[in-house]
Amino acid sequence: MTDTKITLPESDIPTHFYNIAPDLPTPMPPPLHPGTKEPIGPEALAPIFPMGLILQEVSQERWIEIPDEVRNIYRLYRPSPVFRARALEEFLDTPAKIYYKSEHVSPVGSHKLNTALMQAWMNKQEGVKRLATETGAGQWGSALACACRLMGLECMVYMVRVSYDSKPYRRIMMKTYGAEIIASPSTTTRAGRTILAKDPQSPGSLGIAISEAIEDAAGRDDTKYALGSVLNHVLLHQTIIGQEAKKQMELAGDYPDIVIGCHGGGSNFAGLAFPFLRDKLKGERPALRAIAAEPASCPSLTKGAREYDFGDTAGTTPLMMMHTLGHDFIPPPVHAGGLRYHGSAPLVSHLLAAGAIEAEAYQQREVFKSAVDFARCEGTIPAPESAHAIHSAIRHALAARASGEKKIILFNLSGHGIFDMAAYEAYLDGKMGA
Amino acid sequence: MTDTKITLPESDIPTHFYNIAPDLPTPMPPPLHPGTKEPIGPEALAPIFPMGLILQEVSQERWIEIPDEVRNIYRLYRPSPVFRARALEEFLDTPAKIYYKSEHVSPVGSHKLNTALMQAWMNKQEGVKRLATETGAGQWGSALACACRLMGLECMVYMVRVSYDSKPYRRIMMKTYGAEIIASPSTTTRAGRTILAKDPQSPGSLGIAISEAIEDAAGRDDTKYALGSVLNHVLLHQTIIGQEAKKQMELAGDYPDIVIGCHGGGSNFAGLAFPFLRDKLKGERPALRAIAAEPASCPSLTKGAREYDFGDTAGTTPLMMMHTLGHDFIPPPVHAGGLRYHGSAPLVSHLLAAGAIEAEAYQQREVFKSAVDFARCEGTIPAPESAHAIHSAIRHALAARASGEKKIILFNLSGHGIFDMAAYEAYLDGKMGA
Repeated sequence: MTDTKITLPESDIPTHFYNIAPDLPTPMPPPLHPGTKEPIGPEALAPIFPMGLILQEVSQERWIEIPDEVRNIYRLYRPSPVFRARALEEFLDTPAKIYYKSEHVSPVGSHKLNTALMQAWMNKQEGVKRLATETGAGQWGSALACACRLMGLECMVYMVRVSYDSKPYRRIMMKTYGAEIIASPSTTTRAGRTILAKDPQSPGSLGIAISEAIEDAAGRDDTKYALGSVLNHVLLHQTIIGQEAKKQMELAGDYPDIVIGCHGGGSNFAGLAFPFLRDKLKGERPALRAIAAEPASCPSLTKGAREYDFGDTAGTTPLMMMHTLGHDFIPPPVHAGGLRYHGSAPLVSHLLAAGAIEAEAYQQREVFKSAVDFARCEGTIPAPESAHAIHSAIRHALAARASGEKKIILFNLSGHGIFDMAAYEAYLDGKMGA
Repeated sequence: MTDTKITLPESDIPTHFYNIAPDLPTPMPPPLHPGTKEPIGPEALAPIFPMGLILQEVSQERWIEIPDEVRNIYRLYRPSPVFRARALEEFLDTPAKIYYKSEHVSPVGSHKLNTALMQAWMNKQEGVKRLATETGAGQWGSALACACRLMGLECMVYMVRVSYDSKPYRRIMMKTYGAEIIASPSTTTRAGRTILAKDPQSPGSLGIAISEAIEDAAGRDDTKYALGSVLNHVLLHQTIIGQEAKKQMELAGDYPDIVIGCHGGGSNFAGLAFPFLRDKLKGERPALRAIAAEPASCPSLTKGAREYDFGDTAGTTPLMMMHTLGHDFIPPPVHAGGLRYHGSAPLVSHLLAAGAIEAEAYQQREVFKSAVDFARCEGTIPAPESAHAIHSAIRHALAARASGEKKIILFNLSGHGIFDMAAYEAYLDGKMGA
């Protein structure tokens, strides 16, 4: 019997991040200053990001070296295995082969640690002592809290009030790593106080928390800001996922017909897909399909216009060209909290506009059905976010059964669902909305 | 730089369980019938266990083959890595090398799945359709629920009422795997109804839940009972942990001076230690120290007498010779719920009496301090149970610093602490009792 897990030795942890920018079919529209509408230069971001990350953000170099210290900490959980989902294939009675890359094996339970470690390292090189960030349900916040601790930085997390109160477990995880966590809106920033003056009972929002974290970083010399998705450099750091997966698929003797990632801001999809897309953009794999699976309740790629918009709700970031539902779009409270973002990463949006990738949108109940089927076949309970990718993979595997095609499908299991048991209960009890 | 993780290919998943019985320095005292006080034969257990497991329980064969179907499912998470805890060593400034076997990587987050899969398989061979068990905090129940699903059996879990109400996440996990869960005491068994008649608000206990599960199994032709620790065959199944670890330590070029497991019923300690103890019992490694680390609040090994006692609170099991605090001992509600058992496995008790192993007992607050130190160095948040092994390892590493000895320490990280965030919060907020 061939192996269930395709593993790589630590020496196969990638030495470089893959930057897709030089391989794009057309150049990216630049980010614009919200006042002048002129393209902004790197210096515009310097108050909140370290220069090393800003240079990665605008780099046209295809390969960007990963520092040894970061690679050494990646050894705690990388290379992550690729699994062949045999029991799921059997359950679906499909001729397709289903593989999944397992980013849920990181200590914090998701792919977010990949970029958190690199961001913390770069800040440390430039003398930064403390990072500020926002978090909704807490996946990104706990990744940055862990990364800061492992790199010896302090970490300040503005956590959306409603999650702070109703989802204590991620908050405690951040605290265990030594981070400071405050419910947002808070009284410690002007942005927070302004909101609280209008509505003392404000439940908060990701947009408000971003404003608070940026204000914190901009106002202190020892502090910078960190973002967990959307930006070019964040997607860049996640490409270690796809690079490892390419080697692993080669070991399995298969090349995927379809690669799938769930889509919120775009980083886990990009992380898996971009290294494969390089082959497509070079013309070597013209038939490769790369699919971003998003929630029907927050359909930035499938329903959003591609236009210049703000990255945050308050409208303080540069304008970015992206598929967006409007920066004031408030997604309904679906359980896949990590996918509740109004826009899509500019790089992902650009590739969609160029026809290089596809997008699909799914309802939450059908997604949870697939999540439960997966757990009952493969043992691992997936994050509701990742379950969007699972659902897409299952649909394509069933299509392959109908057509009799031996498709090779690879998806990204970006996180586990251990913190999401309440959502599973709602689904199992028939109390989940569409 | 040498690797952080020492991994093995799937072909190195053990082919046999290691049975320590034939290597014991003196024979084990037999289990006795509670009425006649005569040694019981295998047939006495037949109403609740399948004959295949009963034969393993009493076997004197050193190596017992693992069925292919079980080995194939082990591939989902085995061989589990051994980590070198470099960051922890540095933090402790110790010349000792600290290694840990990582059983927390299983889909259910602990070593319990190792025996759950083997037990489910054996029952399936004998035509059993359904397994009944008890669970306290839920670690064992979720492992058996997962194993039953993967093997195609039904699963019925009697969950202690107070955990059922206050710890919903493990309950939902079991439900996600398709198990039926009922709060114990329940009205579906005579044992449960008797308790409820006296005390309708009974919070339940592990002892009551065991009685309900045994009654369920004994009363239905399609159902058997499954236990997650204590018995010989359960410890036997866990020896795949130590067998893998021996190969991994060989690859690392080290042989441990000290192996450590936390101790509740004894199965994770035995799983890691027994394959190493074989070398000691053969006289090849006379200096090897095997340490069982238990909570000071439930000190069966360090304070309990070794005598014949019941395995359950109600006194319905055969009498077993073991270190025990008395079958009516009610441990205080410490956070390491998996270690709250009045007795110790007969095999572990026998080895302690023979001087082949040692035991240590620790207070919960010092254990949590070590758990947090570990999480902040290594990233992974450990289960409170496993943190007893971590604390012991840290103490021995600090002793090595004091004496300047380059000790080799190996402990078992039997589970992760993601379900135990409330306990971490109590510790971090200074609200945890000693």
